[in-house]
Amino acid sequence: MGKSNNRPFILVTNDDGYKAKGISKLTEIAMQFGDVLVMSATESQSGKSHSITIKDPIRYKCVDNTPELTRYVVKGTPVDGVKLALNSLLGKKPDLLLSGVNHGTNSSTSVVYSGTMAAAIEGAIHLVPSIGFSLLDYHHDADFDAAEPYLKLVIQRTLEEGLPEGTCLNVNIPAVPREQIEGVRVCRQTNGYWKEHFETREDPRGGSYSWLTGSFFNREPEAEDTDEWALQHNYLAVVPVKTDFTDYALLDKMSKWEANKVADENR
Amino acid sequence: MGKSNNRPFILVTNDDGYKAKGISKLTEIAMQFGDVLVMSATESQSGKSHSITIKDPIRYKCVDNTPELTRYVVKGTPVDGVKLALNSLLGKKPDLLLSGVNHGTNSSTSVVYSGTMAAAIEGAIHLVPSIGFSLLDYHHDADFDAAEPYLKLVIQRTLEEGLPEGTCLNVNIPAVPREQIEGVRVCRQTNGYWKEHFETREDPRGGSYSWLTGSFFNREPEAEDTDEWALQHNYLAVVPVKTDFTDYALLDKMSKWEANKVADENR
Repeated sequence: MGKSNNRPFILVTNDDGYKAKGISKLTEIAMQFGDVLVMSATESQSGKSHSITIKDPIRYKCVDNTPELTRYVVKGTPVDGVKLALNSLLGKKPDLLLSGVNHGTNSSTSVVYSGTMAAAIEGAIHLVPSIGFSLLDYHHDADFDAAEPYLKLVIQRTLEEGLPEGTCLNVNIPAVPREQIEGVRVCRQTNGYWKEHFETREDPRGGSYSWLTGSFFNREPEAEDTDEWALQHNYLAVVPVKTDFTDYALLDKMSKWEANKVADENR
Repeated sequence: MGKSNNRPFILVTNDDGYKAKGISKLTEIAMQFGDVLVMSATESQSGKSHSITIKDPIRYKCVDNTPELTRYVVKGTPVDGVKLALNSLLGKKPDLLLSGVNHGTNSSTSVVYSGTMAAAIEGAIHLVPSIGFSLLDYHHDADFDAAEPYLKLVIQRTLEEGLPEGTCLNVNIPAVPREQIEGVRVCRQTNGYWKEHFETREDPRGGSYSWLTGSFFNREPEAEDTDEWALQHNYLAVVPVKTDFTDYALLDKMSKWEANKVADENR
């Protein structure tokens, strides 16, 4: 894998499983830039976030093996697949990790639930320039062609300029025809949350069970520098995401929280 | 629940399941500060990160119901439990969310894999002051008593001063006897990663399966302002964690990445 010449070597993964249209498109685009290793899950891993498989073994199978394209199918989470590729299957670090294209949004705080972005964050922790792509259309036959020139722009830039160590990109794509896409905006993560609704039912034996549904609530709909604003105005939203979650602004203020050994009477 | 008087109302959760010693201790401590609702999983959810249950229903059962303590057992992930409590079971927002005490470390970048911290991050997204506690001992009978006075200090401070909206605390506790604990340090997240080892075996039918194991690698062992340094020197490490992952330092530099509509020839 990745042996054909000096072309970049690109790791592609997703959280919708190997049959998803989104990863087919992303693989096709990636192959225009370099040699590709695809690690995709046997089935959808949506909502799996940064899960790792600890108690069960991880199974994987090579299903394609040419100089330009190697494909593995993994029974595990997206992060399992990235770890497997980086630590076991590959003798070298990839030049780029691409995750997606996810079927459905991962903007704003959805980044924390997203297997797509977890794979990109895992890449960044291992110092691989990494990008997660998500289209705001969860249908299995969504149109992944419309934004192709813009995806290529972002990939080209990343290959040329790299990303700072420990930072990856969260790219969300509006679900509109190509002629309606306005361009690419670099944004911050919107302050918002999912307001869940639990539809609770009684089973025949009297136990309760609930189905989780929800809708997104934007706390700052007027803010023009956010990813939600960009998407609502038909821009691709590019958010640089840090893997260092420290609230540095708070460190100084919290120094008075520090304490030495507690006095004996408290023990 | 939470009706007894004007005492703070505290939501307690974990990712090791309702039988874990860590959540028993944390519940006992929480009840010294206020009225408590416990949401714990039926079984261990370690490594589940910020997973949510989308495709299956979530089951839950009330197992205790007094004015001072209400307990639910949830068949779902830690984040499912927090969402269920905040959006469905509770008529009001808790004054505090406590998650843990986890059996095992969640320092440095382990924060991204941690169900304990995912519950705290979910609380912070919903603007509840939230703290995740983890003890650096994964044994089921670990000593959760040693650090009790320090846990109380952190909880007391948080109740008195609150936390900024969207920020929670990641508190890791050294696994040493009380007299060896040096105090509490406010730190930043260490730059480090898990270097995985996959032990790969062949099954009788010729398929491969791998067990995920690994060891932590600290990229900055000399840095005295990190959580790893604090823990190695027997301090409780308190890291303020943001739920806004934006790399603000990069926003300006990336503005040249912005693009308008692509030219027609690229379409």
